[in-house]
Amino acid sequence: MPENETYAKGLEGVVAGESEICRIDGQNGRLYYLGYPIEELARDSDFEETTYLLLYGRLPNRQELAEFSRKLRAGRDLSEQVLAMIRGFPKAAHPMELLQSVISYLSGYVQHRIQHSPTCNCRDTLHQVAQVASVLAAWQRFREGREYVPPRPDLAHGANFLYMLRGQEPEPYEGRIMDTALVLHAEHGFNASTFTARVVASTMSTCYCSISAAIGALYGSLHGGANERVMKAVEEIGSRGNVKKFLDNELDRAHKIMGMGHRIYKAKDPRALIMEQFLEELSGKKKDTRYLEILKELERDFRSRMEEKGKPLYPNVDFFSGAVYSLLGIPTILFTPVFAIARVSGWLAHILEQRKDNRLYRPASLYTGAAERHYVPLAERS
Amino acid sequence: MPENETYAKGLEGVVAGESEICRIDGQNGRLYYLGYPIEELARDSDFEETTYLLLYGRLPNRQELAEFSRKLRAGRDLSEQVLAMIRGFPKAAHPMELLQSVISYLSGYVQHRIQHSPTCNCRDTLHQVAQVASVLAAWQRFREGREYVPPRPDLAHGANFLYMLRGQEPEPYEGRIMDTALVLHAEHGFNASTFTARVVASTMSTCYCSISAAIGALYGSLHGGANERVMKAVEEIGSRGNVKKFLDNELDRAHKIMGMGHRIYKAKDPRALIMEQFLEELSGKKKDTRYLEILKELERDFRSRMEEKGKPLYPNVDFFSGAVYSLLGIPTILFTPVFAIARVSGWLAHILEQRKDNRLYRPASLYTGAAERHYVPLAERS
Repeated sequence: MPENETYAKGLEGVVAGESEICRIDGQNGRLYYLGYPIEELARDSDFEETTYLLLYGRLPNRQELAEFSRKLRAGRDLSEQVLAMIRGFPKAAHPMELLQSVISYLSGYVQHRIQHSPTCNCRDTLHQVAQVASVLAAWQRFREGREYVPPRPDLAHGANFLYMLRGQEPEPYEGRIMDTALVLHAEHGFNASTFTARVVASTMSTCYCSISAAIGALYGSLHGGANERVMKAVEEIGSRGNVKKFLDNELDRAHKIMGMGHRIYKAKDPRALIMEQFLEELSGKKKDTRYLEILKELERDFRSRMEEKGKPLYPNVDFFSGAVYSLLGIPTILFTPVFAIARVSGWLAHILEQRKDNRLYRPASLYTGAAERHYVPLAERS
Repeated sequence: MPENETYAKGLEGVVAGESEICRIDGQNGRLYYLGYPIEELARDSDFEETTYLLLYGRLPNRQELAEFSRKLRAGRDLSEQVLAMIRGFPKAAHPMELLQSVISYLSGYVQHRIQHSPTCNCRDTLHQVAQVASVLAAWQRFREGREYVPPRPDLAHGANFLYMLRGQEPEPYEGRIMDTALVLHAEHGFNASTFTARVVASTMSTCYCSISAAIGALYGSLHGGANERVMKAVEEIGSRGNVKKFLDNELDRAHKIMGMGHRIYKAKDPRALIMEQFLEELSGKKKDTRYLEILKELERDFRSRMEEKGKPLYPNVDFFSGAVYSLLGIPTILFTPVFAIARVSGWLAHILEQRKDNRLYRPASLYTGAAERHYVPLAERS
């Protein structure tokens, strides 16, 4: 290996770029988008405004927000062609594969202006942000043998998703919780899917093609899908009284407890705190406290065991989000796709930032294969 | 930035992984797949056998090759659903966007066995390799208002592509040249698209989703597309006599000459030598030497100018490939997609290798944004 090269498996410890978008203070459990604490955005903003903040780097004024919202909402409706793709998609397949496919298909409907220039029209139509939720809602409706529900331009993004899924307007508190869950998941720095979006964008590919690629990365079980596995554990546990036995078993077999601990956060994930409040609120309103009871007991028991060992581990956002989505009537298979509804904003923000000061991602590799050898004709091979 | 981190813009000089697949000796202009010199594979092997070599790490015996070929050829035909996606794709859009979409759509048709295991069924159906050429041929036929031509299982991959494109069997020399062009483009180490495929695969996403993402990266103008720009220059030049004036103009304006020089090769790209022979052969058979004359003169004049300056620059594979494809009747817009027909084998090889000793790609980033600030209510913003 040449001396001027560094080998970093999985790129651990390698800074692959600068970014102004997201700051994570893992030590203190703080998360900021463009400098704004996530708690303030969760309390005072909504998904559309937060998306504006991510894409433009600042909060909009009234007129800018109205115009942005209008564009986003106008972009939500699905074309007949996309509806046919959804209808024809194999029933047993995963909606993330479909979503990846649809988003790059949509690239064909846009006249892109991106060649070697950060000046582009990615923020002009917003179909790539708007239609993620619509595709998923339509997929779920068709699966249930029901009809497509067109979007409602008077509904905010979270409420509209629940509306398109259910065919009836959600309660205001449900819409608010869904929308804020999207705010919480909109951005989180250089994870594998965001990094994928930036690598693809660095070739000057379109933002739709870059986002499609990121969806492919989020689909991987090492990236998305943790909240799905938390809910599988919750279903397996069944009731609060079984938590101790479950933990005894899992820890005996040295299994990881899903939704606990985070590579970056050494304190409780600030998003987990907000999701926990939502779970409490929803459990009360829906008069269904089973998930809440199991999760709270799981957290308490696991934390005390880990603290005894001097290895404190705290819940991350995935620990509570699955239960929140379940109480909102979202099927488990849509948990990872719902992540994409939100994260598409962060991906697009990173794509725009990448283009502003672009350098093609082109790492080196270390050759460990065979020395030169010669072709043997087929007839002489055994 | 923490002391244990390295900042490498575009990951330059960072070794992102080990690989046994491809060795490029840029100093001497040599390229090897699994240790076999590209010249021997180009002369003695074909695309199907080379794909086997890339995916299994060794040359097949007669029975293995027959079985592999059978599977690959059986996977070429397009379903009604995919044909409808192609027919419905916006006419002005680029086929790379369509291809990215179709490949992840196809992921839904396969029962994947990949969870945390290199043991997978990626090599069992081969639709992800086989259908790239079919999608492109069908797209081109529909564009011309013609019918889909189903694949012919008796034809090798290169010849079959030309057959599906034209609706009639190509001459044997055309099929051989097309097939060998695919061999030459099948693999080339950690470029941006292959790196994308590995990053997505590192999340344990499916090979179809990983390949779809790689197509998105190849679509970028900084990655694929150089041969398209060479042919634009050739058309602009028009005839051999105009080469000097063209070069005077371009070099005065400090423009790069497309197809000349390569980040890795400091000698002539070995693939360019082979492509040049093909161009000579095709020019003779087709009795059309215009491209050949212009390109040879362009190479000669440019090389002598650069050698005078002590900065020798040699043609890369893109310098001749566009002219070869043009003489084979392939339209310019399909040049980058044709690259994908070949490179899909390399991508799949890298995906399989990535999974064998996987580590999720998760680089760090350097925060350069705003310090903590507070949310301002909409009414108070100017």
